[in-house]
Amino acid sequence: MKILVINAGSSSLKYQLFNMDNGDVLAKGLCERIGMDGAVTHKRPGKPDYKADVELKDHDDALKIVIDLLVGAETGVVKSIDEIDAVGHRFAHGGNLKGSQIITESVLKYLESIVPINPLHGPPAIAGYKACARLMDGKPQVGVFDTSFYTQIEDFRYIYAIPYEFYEKDNIRRYGFHGTSHRYVSAKAAELLGKPVDQVKVITCHLGNGSSITAVKNGVAIDTTMGFTPQEGVPMGTRSGSIDPTVVTYLMKTKGYSPEEMETILNKKSGFQGIFGNSDCRNVGDAAKAGDPKAILAQKMLGNAVKRYIGSFTAELNGVDAVVFTGGIGEHDSTIRGMALSELENFGIKLDAARNSEVNGTGMISTDDSPIQVWVIPTDEEYMIALDTQKLA
Amino acid sequence: MKILVINAGSSSLKYQLFNMDNGDVLAKGLCERIGMDGAVTHKRPGKPDYKADVELKDHDDALKIVIDLLVGAETGVVKSIDEIDAVGHRFAHGGNLKGSQIITESVLKYLESIVPINPLHGPPAIAGYKACARLMDGKPQVGVFDTSFYTQIEDFRYIYAIPYEFYEKDNIRRYGFHGTSHRYVSAKAAELLGKPVDQVKVITCHLGNGSSITAVKNGVAIDTTMGFTPQEGVPMGTRSGSIDPTVVTYLMKTKGYSPEEMETILNKKSGFQGIFGNSDCRNVGDAAKAGDPKAILAQKMLGNAVKRYIGSFTAELNGVDAVVFTGGIGEHDSTIRGMALSELENFGIKLDAARNSEVNGTGMISTDDSPIQVWVIPTDEEYMIALDTQKLA
Repeated sequence: MKILVINAGSSSLKYQLFNMDNGDVLAKGLCERIGMDGAVTHKRPGKPDYKADVELKDHDDALKIVIDLLVGAETGVVKSIDEIDAVGHRFAHGGNLKGSQIITESVLKYLESIVPINPLHGPPAIAGYKACARLMDGKPQVGVFDTSFYTQIEDFRYIYAIPYEFYEKDNIRRYGFHGTSHRYVSAKAAELLGKPVDQVKVITCHLGNGSSITAVKNGVAIDTTMGFTPQEGVPMGTRSGSIDPTVVTYLMKTKGYSPEEMETILNKKSGFQGIFGNSDCRNVGDAAKAGDPKAILAQKMLGNAVKRYIGSFTAELNGVDAVVFTGGIGEHDSTIRGMALSELENFGIKLDAARNSEVNGTGMISTDDSPIQVWVIPTDEEYMIALDTQKLA
Repeated sequence: MKILVINAGSSSLKYQLFNMDNGDVLAKGLCERIGMDGAVTHKRPGKPDYKADVELKDHDDALKIVIDLLVGAETGVVKSIDEIDAVGHRFAHGGNLKGSQIITESVLKYLESIVPINPLHGPPAIAGYKACARLMDGKPQVGVFDTSFYTQIEDFRYIYAIPYEFYEKDNIRRYGFHGTSHRYVSAKAAELLGKPVDQVKVITCHLGNGSSITAVKNGVAIDTTMGFTPQEGVPMGTRSGSIDPTVVTYLMKTKGYSPEEMETILNKKSGFQGIFGNSDCRNVGDAAKAGDPKAILAQKMLGNAVKRYIGSFTAELNGVDAVVFTGGIGEHDSTIRGMALSELENFGIKLDAARNSEVNGTGMISTDDSPIQVWVIPTDEEYMIALDTQKLA
């Protein structure tokens, strides 16, 4: 069975074609600057990358290029589009949809209805789906929703303590994001611990340009840091994470910012960007090594925020078997992992400094006698989407 | 030595007169509806309360009444004002002032300079001080600041991940509040644990109409839930506590609220009020007992938020000796304590259900074999203010 996974952003379309018989990635690539000047990169294992500047008016154009590349004489990995059995689509926001599902007319209608609470990610993901529905007519189209991992969270954890009508009438609640990544690495962690996924308690830290942490009890997410939007939780590349809500209104009152300007500040000019002046954790890390105090401050802020949530979720889980780090920072930044995990011996985590600095790919970074294990596990959201699609197609 | 403690609010002035030789309260009372119709209640141990409606134009009027009552033939407890050695003033916000101190001209100027970030509590507290300076000329006037317990918190815990200039130029940072209460009960906890205060790690939960939780390591606060304002942290009587910052801007965009209207919603119409429709935890408790689902939801929201922070701070403290509950809810609401402390056996807290429901005043509510002890300790901010005043006067 061959499954195409599509992840459509506002000006990009990522794709991966899986052979589900062995899990191999046959090809993957990225269409970018859709609606602007347009470019595509197409990769196959063991072959040189194909790169080209191409006109990409919209997501239909992008998908046409992807199909041409997948079946093309020079670039192809299948003889015809008929070899592809199904398409899996990543949706960052699925509202209250429980679990992955075939995108029916009613699912599509629901996804369109929640665009107001998901204005950035909703429209391109829907456009990506519609392009596939048109150009790959008849193939099962499956939606995999980052939020659906969180639909079993209890009400007292997803409702905010603001007037109840905002929940009832305006759908303001914690949704949670990155669910597909957290689901993937928590299942991997169970494997590594040698236990069934429904018998482990795991805290998964997905730290990247966007960051979230999730408490997973027996395969079910019981709490998470991101909320109504991906803004809540720990500091990120350009996002503030949680702050005193009155900081928002105080800045608007004293500086005269509009709600839109304030959102831009909190979303695009905060986090590492706001503290250090650059959002990339590698640049922060380089500057911190050179002694830059604001870079060190930014690292400590993230590290301590992660530590705080490890504590919160250990309490909510009533003890935890393992903490997992994944994502660009989680997999590669030993300094921030070290800050998050330092001085936790009495809490139950003993970090092995050498393992932490040497880990490459999947590996345990706690000591052998640490009551709570700590693992680094590379995430693979696309493979998770392909697995769900395989089950439903 | 006799010390008068003054706690001035926008339309009220609370006072207590202490005999510091034995800690006795000689008299205490409340002037309320200052600037409106005016009323005073004056209490002495073993004597009937004195209550009267009186004209109270301003805090000067209120203090004149207080002095008259303290020295009056019928109501008095001292022969003349000269018997009072010093006055201690409660300031909710002392900005960056480190520790309690005599209110000099420069301290007063600094307190006046931070009124913009403390518009509700600053002006009446300053008015209360000025009334005493005028009417009790020559007595040492000591300022005790709720925030000063937090001035040793490290920068990565008090700076928000928003553009750094808002910290540098606009004083936007975590200040923390209720410090005098947290300092009092954490010191009491050390006594009860039989250890010097500089050798214990305590988490203090001050839960009342306003609620905050503080991590105290060796007598020093290292983190706390309230931030730039008392809005941050757990849900309260009428305050939201922490929420996704984008909820604020989203509501303003979609509902057209001004920053002032949004602040009113978050400060006055949220928390218990927003979820259940009434801010008083006793009403919430009664309705919850009768099965009201929103009352139960409101209780669980607070209980779980407290549990989350107990977890966070246990991690930041790298283990904790005791958790302390104080304040109106913390001392009296066994249901919310029970929700915060349930299912924490693997985490290290074993609640004793009988002790929790029966405790009255100071008492331990964990089991004898609980690795982390849990105590209820009634707070006494006024006595703490009197102690500080005694030291400095």
